[in-house]
Amino acid sequence: MAILVTGGSGYVGLNVVDALARAGREVVSFDMTRPPPVAAAQLSALPGRVHPVDGDLLDAAALERAFEAAPIEAVIHTAAVTSGPARESTEPQRVFQVNVLGTIGVLEAARRASVRRVVVTSSGAAYGESLYRPGLMQEDATPVLPTTLYATTKYAAERTARRLAELWQLEIACARLGTLIGPWERDGAAHAHGVRDNFGPHSQLARMAVMGGEAVLPPEECTRDWVYAPDVGRALVLLADAPTLPHGIYNLSAGIDWTGDIAAWCAVLAARFPGFRHRIARAGETPNVHYTDRARSPMAVDRFEADHAFVATRDRATIHRGFADWAARVGRAWYAC
Amino acid sequence: MAILVTGGSGYVGLNVVDALARAGREVVSFDMTRPPPVAAAQLSALPGRVHPVDGDLLDAAALERAFEAAPIEAVIHTAAVTSGPARESTEPQRVFQVNVLGTIGVLEAARRASVRRVVVTSSGAAYGESLYRPGLMQEDATPVLPTTLYATTKYAAERTARRLAELWQLEIACARLGTLIGPWERDGAAHAHGVRDNFGPHSQLARMAVMGGEAVLPPEECTRDWVYAPDVGRALVLLADAPTLPHGIYNLSAGIDWTGDIAAWCAVLAARFPGFRHRIARAGETPNVHYTDRARSPMAVDRFEADHAFVATRDRATIHRGFADWAARVGRAWYAC
Repeated sequence: MAILVTGGSGYVGLNVVDALARAGREVVSFDMTRPPPVAAAQLSALPGRVHPVDGDLLDAAALERAFEAAPIEAVIHTAAVTSGPARESTEPQRVFQVNVLGTIGVLEAARRASVRRVVVTSSGAAYGESLYRPGLMQEDATPVLPTTLYATTKYAAERTARRLAELWQLEIACARLGTLIGPWERDGAAHAHGVRDNFGPHSQLARMAVMGGEAVLPPEECTRDWVYAPDVGRALVLLADAPTLPHGIYNLSAGIDWTGDIAAWCAVLAARFPGFRHRIARAGETPNVHYTDRARSPMAVDRFEADHAFVATRDRATIHRGFADWAARVGRAWYAC
Repeated sequence: MAILVTGGSGYVGLNVVDALARAGREVVSFDMTRPPPVAAAQLSALPGRVHPVDGDLLDAAALERAFEAAPIEAVIHTAAVTSGPARESTEPQRVFQVNVLGTIGVLEAARRASVRRVVVTSSGAAYGESLYRPGLMQEDATPVLPTTLYATTKYAAERTARRLAELWQLEIACARLGTLIGPWERDGAAHAHGVRDNFGPHSQLARMAVMGGEAVLPPEECTRDWVYAPDVGRALVLLADAPTLPHGIYNLSAGIDWTGDIAAWCAVLAARFPGFRHRIARAGETPNVHYTDRARSPMAVDRFEADHAFVATRDRATIHRGFADWAARVGRAWYAC
């Protein structure tokens, strides 16, 4: 039996496909576009088997083809528009169509195919206003006050999945992801089918290190609830496989304060990529590295840890080494694509 | 200048149109269907002027016609699918399309027409799980945990409106309505374009009183945060007219414990409609009066009161007299339509 990964060419999706292929699993990867050749090459070298199926999430017939490509036991639904303010202003309906109606379409197809479980990826962004208050974000206790359309659609998709699980007797697990850092992030603005508007600062720096250039950083470092992308891939597979689901919703992140991580990452990149230079912007100078949001409080991760015996990597050096190794391996073939 | 009321033939919408027409205002009433003739007759006897425009909320050209029917100063957006479990199970996408994409469409059209303000009607249902806990629902402090698709779409529409207000520099006020009791409710199941699946117990009883028959009540009365429908109509007009909007979101209800209201309403109906009988179901007997949800905690209403000098009617006798007078006036012409 195979796992169907929707959005299998995206940032979260590629990390899920990578984790599954690494574990020797059979995967159907559904997306509008194929991943760049360097990703396909890396994935095909792993023990698992990946069947790509091309299609739009909102095309029911295409989705059906994905469910027919192999017998599907579970779905990990990562396809989404990760929208920034410009897209939210010009295409608000599209963001809802993909992120909410698309999720309903996946659940409808999963129900027809009698799959055992669907894992829905939500986002810590859903906490919205609460993220800028002190304290850990708790799954049930913290008010969910989404501010962006992206966050609003993520919360709506969560609650919709919960409702349809009840009405349709489906097994559904939702995970609110922290902000991923690590392999397989691309700048949405840089390719035609861009659906990822927020390209994280770690990846911006990795791209500069690989492509050459000088990073000009904002004077104040901004921390987020960062989580190592391969951890997210593995953890989502755990949610798909878990024999029981004590909860329907889980925070999935490292859950710690990462203060100083950008400076540390710059130092690692400088040691690894000799041409890479970095400095803080001078007074009045515009930085060329951008944070995609203000600093956020981290999420509580004890529920995921207790229910699924999973602890995200919290050792900065381990994450930076893994990410830099990957960046060196994929090199320009990834960042220029 | 006119006020555009979307869903002007619906329960909330007719109460808004009624309040505006009573105040001598000009109204454009946009809906898929015209209200029953008895409603049109009652409204046309009022001092205001109502222009009906027929169309589907999801048809951008039809919506455009509504904005062109008169110069529009403000919009009161009440159009929605008030879905029950059966519809949520069979048409989940449609509920989202109408309630969220439809709201985005109204905001887009309002922006193009440069209207001064849009009032978006949300629902106390948005509080979801929190409604079954003790304490008053507070706009910002109470966790919003919608359980149904209807509630999920209402919260999503609120947060979307808030976001687009910021991105587009629109003035938007949202109101979370309590459960309306009073004039102009129809049973959605009873007419072809039914979009209201939850026909309240007060209206079920009023229909029986008018049409004849015996009401068989559930053994335990269920209380809700009831609010007199004409109060909601007036209050939404206040939100549209208010010179300033200190808050973007308001609970709009009576905010009190209504325990015993169903029994009291039965007594009023029995005195007014001689053929009406009512009794509690015997052990094992199926009632023919239904509650549409479990008992809910009421909403805090101090914010609306403080900002807009509006207090909902809390005197049971006043509400019951007004509702019974209306039911006697419209009679079978309303409930048989």
